[in-house]
Amino acid sequence: MNFEPRATRKDIDGAFSNPEFFSYAVEAYEASKKKSLARDILDEQKKVLEADLVIFQFPLYWLSVPAIMKGWMDRVLCQGFAFDFPGFHDSGFFKGKRALLSLTTGGTAEMYTKTGTIGDYRNFLWLLQYGVLHFCGFEVLASQISYAPGLATEEERKGMVASWAQRLKNIWMEEPINCTLP
Amino acid sequence: MNFEPRATRKDIDGAFSNPEFFSYAVEAYEASKKKSLARDILDEQKKVLEADLVIFQFPLYWLSVPAIMKGWMDRVLCQGFAFDFPGFHDSGFFKGKRALLSLTTGGTAEMYTKTGTIGDYRNFLWLLQYGVLHFCGFEVLASQISYAPGLATEEERKGMVASWAQRLKNIWMEEPINCTLP
Repeated sequence: MNFEPRATRKDIDGAFSNPEFFSYAVEAYEASKKKSLARDILDEQKKVLEADLVIFQFPLYWLSVPAIMKGWMDRVLCQGFAFDFPGFHDSGFFKGKRALLSLTTGGTAEMYTKTGTIGDYRNFLWLLQYGVLHFCGFEVLASQISYAPGLATEEERKGMVASWAQRLKNIWMEEPINCTLP
Repeated sequence: MNFEPRATRKDIDGAFSNPEFFSYAVEAYEASKKKSLARDILDEQKKVLEADLVIFQFPLYWLSVPAIMKGWMDRVLCQGFAFDFPGFHDSGFFKGKRALLSLTTGGTAEMYTKTGTIGDYRNFLWLLQYGVLHFCGFEVLASQISYAPGLATEEERKGMVASWAQRLKNIWMEEPINCTLP
């Protein structure tokens, strides 16, 4: 969908709350309350409101989501829509909804362990799970990690897809993970 | 500069290494070796090669860099240019160069502590410092964090800028931080 990742003043549709000094956070917050955010943001927000479960499917780039998905988080999950103060973590606006990270990696599972080539990155997902998703109130389901499909055989790749498909059949029965700081 | 954050096949200038099946990581790696990456990527890579110290100045968005800067990392710091296997961490390609995160936050310093409103995010920078910068070989200097300029008085904001300016005068005398996993 070629989503625009850059947060700019074009995201505010209408007059600025403070025309003298532009603050993205302030203007997005105000525009969120008045539903005067840019069309592409409102469209995405509508999808989130209608969802019971949001699955973030992405290839891991620098231990995080690719920029296009980071931009979705930056622009769509704004204060006033996804959270407020108060109104975060257990009282985040998406309380009652669930979210899940489903990712593919470049490196093998072994590379992400303490003795592996890259290092112990077991906790690389907490920023997204706790700092973003649970901050907005989502209950977080365990991540689906497909390690190194690019290095796998066709058979192994089919196995990854099959196990993910199998899991999805019973996804509504799953209990959220204990989503805290590492 | 409105940098393009999205990693797409347009980043490869010329024939694909594997026209049958497009893999961004594979094609960027091959294009990097042949200097056939898109012009905007090559321009940024040239700046990195010429720099002794790279300062990443950004407002903290979701405990990380905004999407436009994440896209800079995704697209510019590709395998073959910034690292390889082997060729990462202490033998990353930018060995001998230094890097520093200089950021502004929305929340106050107190909010990022264990007893604060948001939680203990003391380690939220390790993914960028260790997982990105030091992975490419950079020696990392201590982060410059200006907390909540949006909530500060004009006087306080001037103080933040002044202390940053003061630090920059002696930046070349600083010792890198011990940049390891938390």
